[in-house]
Amino acid sequence: MPARTYKVAVLGARGLVGQWFARMLSGHPWFKLTAVTSHEAVGAKYGKSVKWVIGGSVPAEFAELELVESDPKRIDADIVFSALPTEAARKLEPEFAREGFAVVSKAAAYRLDERVPLVVPEVNPDHLQLLEAQRGSWDGLLVADPNCTTTILALPLKPVADAYGVRRVVVTTLQAASGAGYPGVPSLDLIDNVIPYIAGEEEKVRDELLKIMGSLRGGRVEWAHFEVAATCTRVPVLDGHLESVYVETEKPVDPAEAVELMRRFRGRPQELKLPTAPEAPLVVLEGEDRPQPRLDRMAGSVPGMSVAVGRVRRGPSERSLMFVALGHNLVRGAAGSALLLAELLAAEGYV
Amino acid sequence: MPARTYKVAVLGARGLVGQWFARMLSGHPWFKLTAVTSHEAVGAKYGKSVKWVIGGSVPAEFAELELVESDPKRIDADIVFSALPTEAARKLEPEFAREGFAVVSKAAAYRLDERVPLVVPEVNPDHLQLLEAQRGSWDGLLVADPNCTTTILALPLKPVADAYGVRRVVVTTLQAASGAGYPGVPSLDLIDNVIPYIAGEEEKVRDELLKIMGSLRGGRVEWAHFEVAATCTRVPVLDGHLESVYVETEKPVDPAEAVELMRRFRGRPQELKLPTAPEAPLVVLEGEDRPQPRLDRMAGSVPGMSVAVGRVRRGPSERSLMFVALGHNLVRGAAGSALLLAELLAAEGYV
Amino acid sequence: MPARTYKVAVLGARGLVGQWFARMLSGHPWFKLTAVTSHEAVGAKYGKSVKWVIGGSVPAEFAELELVESDPKRIDADIVFSALPTEAARKLEPEFAREGFAVVSKAAAYRLDERVPLVVPEVNPDHLQLLEAQRGSWDGLLVADPNCTTTILALPLKPVADAYGVRRVVVTTLQAASGAGYPGVPSLDLIDNVIPYIAGEEEKVRDELLKIMGSLRGGRVEWAHFEVAATCTRVPVLDGHLESVYVETEKPVDPAEAVELMRRFRGRPQELKLPTAPEAPLVVLEGEDRPQPRLDRMAGSVPGMSVAVGRVRRGPSERSLMFVALGHNLVRGAAGSALLLAELLAAEGYV
Amino acid sequence: MPARTYKVAVLGARGLVGQWFARMLSGHPWFKLTAVTSHEAVGAKYGKSVKWVIGGSVPAEFAELELVESDPKRIDADIVFSALPTEAARKLEPEFAREGFAVVSKAAAYRLDERVPLVVPEVNPDHLQLLEAQRGSWDGLLVADPNCTTTILALPLKPVADAYGVRRVVVTTLQAASGAGYPGVPSLDLIDNVIPYIAGEEEKVRDELLKIMGSLRGGRVEWAHFEVAATCTRVPVLDGHLESVYVETEKPVDPAEAVELMRRFRGRPQELKLPTAPEAPLVVLEGEDRPQPRLDRMAGSVPGMSVAVGRVRRGPSERSLMFVALGHNLVRGAAGSALLLAELLAAEGYV
Repeated sequence: MPARTYKVAVLGARGLVGQWFARMLSGHPWFKLTAVTSHEAVGAKYGKSVKWVIGGSVPAEFAELELVESDPKRIDADIVFSALPTEAARKLEPEFAREGFAVVSKAAAYRLDERVPLVVPEVNPDHLQLLEAQRGSWDGLLVADPNCTTTILALPLKPVADAYGVRRVVVTTLQAASGAGYPGVPSLDLIDNVIPYIAGEEEKVRDELLKIMGSLRGGRVEWAHFEVAATCTRVPVLDGHLESVYVETEKPVDPAEAVELMRRFRGRPQELKLPTAPEAPLVVLEGEDRPQPRLDRMAGSVPGMSVAVGRVRRGPSERSLMFVALGHNLVRGAAGSALLLAELLAAEGYV
Repeated sequence: MPARTYKVAVLGARGLVGQWFARMLSGHPWFKLTAVTSHEAVGAKYGKSVKWVIGGSVPAEFAELELVESDPKRIDADIVFSALPTEAARKLEPEFAREGFAVVSKAAAYRLDERVPLVVPEVNPDHLQLLEAQRGSWDGLLVADPNCTTTILALPLKPVADAYGVRRVVVTTLQAASGAGYPGVPSLDLIDNVIPYIAGEEEKVRDELLKIMGSLRGGRVEWAHFEVAATCTRVPVLDGHLESVYVETEKPVDPAEAVELMRRFRGRPQELKLPTAPEAPLVVLEGEDRPQPRLDRMAGSVPGMSVAVGRVRRGPSERSLMFVALGHNLVRGAAGSALLLAELLAAEGYV
Repeated sequence: MPARTYKVAVLGARGLVGQWFARMLSGHPWFKLTAVTSHEAVGAKYGKSVKWVIGGSVPAEFAELELVESDPKRIDADIVFSALPTEAARKLEPEFAREGFAVVSKAAAYRLDERVPLVVPEVNPDHLQLLEAQRGSWDGLLVADPNCTTTILALPLKPVADAYGVRRVVVTTLQAASGAGYPGVPSLDLIDNVIPYIAGEEEKVRDELLKIMGSLRGGRVEWAHFEVAATCTRVPVLDGHLESVYVETEKPVDPAEAVELMRRFRGRPQELKLPTAPEAPLVVLEGEDRPQPRLDRMAGSVPGMSVAVGRVRRGPSERSLMFVALGHNLVRGAAGSALLLAELLAAEGYV
Repeated sequence: MPARTYKVAVLGARGLVGQWFARMLSGHPWFKLTAVTSHEAVGAKYGKSVKWVIGGSVPAEFAELELVESDPKRIDADIVFSALPTEAARKLEPEFAREGFAVVSKAAAYRLDERVPLVVPEVNPDHLQLLEAQRGSWDGLLVADPNCTTTILALPLKPVADAYGVRRVVVTTLQAASGAGYPGVPSLDLIDNVIPYIAGEEEKVRDELLKIMGSLRGGRVEWAHFEVAATCTRVPVLDGHLESVYVETEKPVDPAEAVELMRRFRGRPQELKLPTAPEAPLVVLEGEDRPQPRLDRMAGSVPGMSVAVGRVRRGPSERSLMFVALGHNLVRGAAGSALLLAELLAAEGYV
């Protein structure tokens, strides 16, 4: 538990991820949202200018916040959550870090930068040590939250990798429309249809996964060495990315044991009892036709923060494991994971 | 071109596959539909009793056909197309074969029976030699058409296997609702949802693929030996199964060459210019976001009879290839493929 | 507030309405669910035998309840909620009433029976006086909850009728798939499609509306006399019936005043502060493109218990009003409305 | 049959309506497409630069046409089909008319202009006489094709109006996503959802319908006088607008007779046997749950050119009629109707 509360800002607060940040920051025990930014509608009230499409309504306590520009000089906060588009993030995030803010970024711009830790809190919290080396450059700091698809894959893969080693991952994703933001995918493309391609996504999954699963050596992250073959598709689902995963392992796998390892899997957020940490990061479902996006995307003791896993079974060889994973792309895949990461920074004394 | 025309019957003519049989037999140059069966509505006119859900309308020339029972004694035909449920097929298909009919079955009952050839006409027409051994048992014959998902996978896999050898196939399918028939999948399960499981489908894909890709030795089919890891899902699409395929090969793959091999791939139906044979069994698409079910399921010079392939690319190692395949599950995956198989039987003199 | 708590049973507890009854009875301050029935799975635990498709999970406190037959002798309860199919309801509900149970029925069987009050608690609570006359026939009582579509229409119509009088209602509904239960509507009928017909629904809307809006005279309900022209359609939406309403009135309408009347509309449940009563039965939305099923079906201080109204505007003549209404068909349209009705019975001393 | 063939151009050829123009002009017996325009991609080949989303592929004979600006000086054609956005149409269409082109406009800009005939060929071909008065202003001419929703309503209303007179129309529409063009409606707005509002649509339906049903008096169109109350909604359907119609008539209605009148309804295009005229403009369906968009939007002897009508029934009074109408919004509602109108101009000697 940190000794104090923190002022936080959300950059790009009107988008889908920004809306989820607002929802999850409402009533947060440590963080107080004091600033929201947008490149449009500066000067307007947040509650009036946001097209709220995630269900429910704008949290009343944030409705009157006035939108400002994404400019470090206009913002009074300790922590800045960035939901900026990539190009804007590339320019602005270092400016915020330079000015002393702790930047927790949901943008892709610096995820593969070797100075920047790319962290799933339950998987590689030790990578935060990279922040030591940032101190020379910036008064603040910059940490990156992975792509939604990567996080949802990394969580169930972690206990498997620890127990059996990973040689190769073949994954096909069925991703929700909300992953493309709003307006995002035209309805003419998703009625009676699926799209077997998402620009840039497969490379992100591969590179980010290898960095997250990598080892910290001599103050640097050495990427993991296994093969990743990803195919990313878009399906007519509102929220929740489903991933069909095949893993080749170093050692023979016992699927029943793998289920137990997943069920018992806990990480640093659970040890620290962080406010947004679910009791179990992985929820293993029994039904042979689960997980399903509509029924399971809100899995977990903190809704949407657990990855639901099902159909855990051996593949064609004894050194292979297959399963299906599902996570809420805007919660565990975006706003929730970034929030958990900020809580980790606070609890570990980085901010 | 056969020397004569054939009378044909459709068993289970009121279902989705039966409806496609009727549509594709309308105006067929060799085959004349003379009998339709159903376990319900015996005595009714086909046109009145079928709930026609595939678009367009019942072919006028079949509307007045009277439904009869699936009983060999009630039917006058040379060839019988079976779209029966598995259990009915298990009982009835041998009866028809015994009574001298050539049975082309879309049912799963005998696909893995070692006496029964399981044939994709462009892939393993030589397996029809198994029919020689059937002559002892039956006056007629029984050939099986594979599961829709298997056929759509086997076609693009064939030229890859011929050129590079196959060691392992990892496939995730996104299958259309019509694959479950009518009424089939409840809409409550497919609005804002996908289902990551189809009962029995993954085993069918594996076993049938290995039999089809197997070799004829000493009058028997020796199954192929590669590994198959399949995950089958259901998505909110009317028609068209999409398959995300990862293949490990024996030899290094050149993806551009693989595209060329697919484009040039032809089989026995093309040599024989069978009426339902498309010019090219495989249509390789250029767009990086293709094939898509709504746009591409009717690909080919005979609509719905070609498999559309896209995103052909190398996997993480030089001995791997990835691609996406799409086929119309009720045409190339069912009625169309069975029809093509019957045409092959006729052209090769088996009937 | 009643002086005591009540034991309640749910007949037909495994269906969609039964699932919502279980959810809404979980933690209820007055009612304790003690029995669940089903014509299948008798003897099984509720939690194991129900296919829970409404999201979330079976309330833990009910998971161990054992399913029994819908037989008055097998059930110990004060109030019985019936979610039975019509035919079963016709037979069983009077048996329960005869044996002394207070039956609150969601079934259509007795809605138009002149002995049975058909009640929307905010609209015609006075019709409960019909129960006096039931006392001769039964030890218990039988009250009916209207069809979902009727309730969602009657609520916004009530303040309009009170202020301006109603001469004619023309309504077209866009109804959710869940209104047909599970499995209900096949997905092949609702992908890229709508169905412009729901069997029996239009007659129910007309007849039930006229009875509900009718007057109690001499111990009988005299139906209202206005015209009702309904067209009911099914659309690819999970939950939430949308209704496009045109009303011709006796007096000239001021639309701004009509909005105010709707906003201020309160009924007996609000006076009595019943546990399931929303603060406002009608929520009038501002956005010109609202209400929308996904965004507004959970409107109200008790989620799903308010009807969301939008687009309130004058029609082509000064004696006409048009608006769009939306209600959750399984909450305000079914389980929630029946629950509210039972609370009214308790608070008014009928049980 | 005209004495010659005509060169035609399509303004705004890359949009959805433009794509349907290209498809329907392919192989047209009278019209030869010689020019396509777009405000983007000028200089590119049509086949390469159009994102073809209507199924099938770009007609081969048009693929090599080079896109030019929408400038009368750049185009050699007799007839110009305008699928321009409203603002561009307002500026450009008179320029084309002035330069001698016959402009057939799908845009809304001049539909209500009193100099411009707004014509459904089967309903009010006599309104083309307004063109006489245009001769003073322009060397060419300008005629307008109505909004898709209006046309689909006007066709079945015409025989009803002729036989019984119309006092009032109350209509609720369920409109397809393609009516908003591409990209159009975001998928997040149409998964598990409908939208009860389409900007400007209800006014268009009312005003255009009254003009079309109006009478030519003294060289001007006197609008019809009946009341129109429209509510327009958007549903998750690709193509096909469904309209739920309630009509109050001057005289008592016999529904069976109304069905016959609809079935026998023919117009000037049928007399003239225009190439794009369906044998019957109205197809009355028997099934109580028809018409449905997916099954019936291609109704008619010229696919998509007939309006499918179903559920024809009396309303609550003897002077009322109710029915459901469905038309393909891009065919009979746009490109097809404009094409038919141009054929009428040619056959009647206006061009």
